[in-house]
Amino acid sequence: MIDTADSLLTTTIAAILPSDTAMRQQAHQRLEQLAIPHWSLGSMLDLAEDLAAITSSMHPAVKRKSIVVMAGDHGIVAAGVSKFPQAVTVEMVRNFVNEKASINALARQVGAQVTVVDVGVAGDLSNLQAAPSLLHMKIAPGTANFTTGPAMSRAQAIRAIEVGIDVANQLAATTDLFGTGDMGIGNTSPSSAIIATLCQRTLADVTGRGTGLDDVALAAKITTLQDAVTLNQPDASDGLDVLAKVGGFEIGAIAGLILGAAAQRKPVVIDGIISTAGALIAASLAPTSVDYMIAGHCSVEQGHRIALETLGKRPLLDLDLRLGEGTGAAIAMNLVEAAVSILTEVATFEEAAISKAPEQSS
Amino acid sequence: MIDTADSLLTTTIAAILPSDTAMRQQAHQRLEQLAIPHWSLGSMLDLAEDLAAITSSMHPAVKRKSIVVMAGDHGIVAAGVSKFPQAVTVEMVRNFVNEKASINALARQVGAQVTVVDVGVAGDLSNLQAAPSLLHMKIAPGTANFTTGPAMSRAQAIRAIEVGIDVANQLAATTDLFGTGDMGIGNTSPSSAIIATLCQRTLADVTGRGTGLDDVALAAKITTLQDAVTLNQPDASDGLDVLAKVGGFEIGAIAGLILGAAAQRKPVVIDGIISTAGALIAASLAPTSVDYMIAGHCSVEQGHRIALETLGKRPLLDLDLRLGEGTGAAIAMNLVEAAVSILTEVATFEEAAISKAPEQSS
Repeated sequence: MIDTADSLLTTTIAAILPSDTAMRQQAHQRLEQLAIPHWSLGSMLDLAEDLAAITSSMHPAVKRKSIVVMAGDHGIVAAGVSKFPQAVTVEMVRNFVNEKASINALARQVGAQVTVVDVGVAGDLSNLQAAPSLLHMKIAPGTANFTTGPAMSRAQAIRAIEVGIDVANQLAATTDLFGTGDMGIGNTSPSSAIIATLCQRTLADVTGRGTGLDDVALAAKITTLQDAVTLNQPDASDGLDVLAKVGGFEIGAIAGLILGAAAQRKPVVIDGIISTAGALIAASLAPTSVDYMIAGHCSVEQGHRIALETLGKRPLLDLDLRLGEGTGAAIAMNLVEAAVSILTEVATFEEAAISKAPEQSS
Repeated sequence: MIDTADSLLTTTIAAILPSDTAMRQQAHQRLEQLAIPHWSLGSMLDLAEDLAAITSSMHPAVKRKSIVVMAGDHGIVAAGVSKFPQAVTVEMVRNFVNEKASINALARQVGAQVTVVDVGVAGDLSNLQAAPSLLHMKIAPGTANFTTGPAMSRAQAIRAIEVGIDVANQLAATTDLFGTGDMGIGNTSPSSAIIATLCQRTLADVTGRGTGLDDVALAAKITTLQDAVTLNQPDASDGLDVLAKVGGFEIGAIAGLILGAAAQRKPVVIDGIISTAGALIAASLAPTSVDYMIAGHCSVEQGHRIALETLGKRPLLDLDLRLGEGTGAAIAMNLVEAAVSILTEVATFEEAAISKAPEQSS
């Protein structure tokens, strides 16, 4: 499926091992013995178990957090799928670097650093050259309009994913917990096309209002995307083909970040629908990478829930978010920390000398 | 409704003013202008607006956090409504003071202090006399069994609420954000009885499995509670009567903590079904106190969702929690902080010089 036998992509995929089932079992046993009614912290205990399995540790490291905002533009905006002008992508990257955007505020709250990556922004970011949190890894100034042909070449799709892997590898030495983020005007359109293809659903099922389309514009978006998918015929069995034909550079880079995190055995919190489209690409290339994904939230975009179901992930939060940038991942990182505190700091019935319910007694 | 004209309870209720609608409007206007698609941070923006209204500030203070765990025992455990022995209440209070319980871990994660209050534990806690985080305010060693008469006298009900007000007043100087918590074996039973009465629902509608009852035990619990409510005839128009007849000391103290927080214009995060039963009592005595409540989560206990609907509150989290102790409130405090960061740190379109969508342009 992948073109070069010894590429960064192939070596990374080969390095992704299943999460540690023995450690999961050990965590499960401890969590069952905590001095609480059985499993009464619900999803937080499931999350704690996942983190033990991901990190192969009963004390999962999650303190050093990095949220990576992948930025790229989309030729399909020429088809009128977004109500914001394309210039906003550049403007928002500047806003991220100036630390005035939503993701900056929410990352600060949870103690995460923000790294912005220009994977394919259609604009000049050279005046931001000195910004330490901005990585210049532009593949092209935006994708091609996939209503008339593929969004990018297969080589560009590989390169986009490798950008994400490269960033994960660069940050790994200083990061315990990754979070995904995105910026790109029009990027709910490729996300819907990816989700429809990889989840085998109709475009109508998975397409939402993005940044705020009305009914007429939504219907037009669905028709445009359906025609584009029919034209491009992405191969649902090949994530690279789907990414190349109907994807986006930042979506590929998100997939790569997830693959890189998985290869490093580090947990990665997935943000909204764009990030989850990236997660589907990652899962298509390396199904085991799903073990390392934590679904941060479920947005109001209807395709998001479908994509999460396909991945087998239950989202931690459901707050009607539909911003992206990594904002849902940042908020969810608080819950990741909380889950670790339960695993590592709460006493068992025996340790605390608490009486058990009859059926919990040994 | 309240017996003594100049009691702590009456003066506190009189001091509760509606939250600040002008400040809510000011916050709403700013949040609408943030450099994001309109209201695309959903419930986080609603929460930010609530916090501005509660605190009368565009920079709501939430940094200094106190979670108050009200502890009490319940005569109704003699009727077999819980599978844990009553001794666990004392044991868990000791566990809280030793900082080894779930609430200690989760409070540490969010930077909250934990205060435990003995409002009515049926056991000797004098060996914990020196513990700085334990307040000795015992009204009686457990309530009476309300299957055979009222759980407590009306005077005790007032006293229980005043314990909570007193604690809120003691902590107010060092607390920006309160959280409620509970400990008391058997306390889902009075909670169900309170919710059924104040939400005008059947006991079958609002009664869950507590710490883990099976089908037979659940059916018996519903019958026991239905008979007890029929016997006691709590007056749904009088929260004090409901608390006295079918309530609990810690539930009254939670109601008082909420009233005290509201009188001080401080936000209070409500935990699970027991705390929400306390919130219903508070709302019955002072409907305006609802303005100051933040619903931390919705538990798996079916009565919890019904109680939150009656209060008109949408919960922040839905994580299948059913522990109590304030654990859901502690986790939700992270989201309160995140909401404030959005209000205070994110730039508007104008401030960041970002292009607007056409209908957002002025």
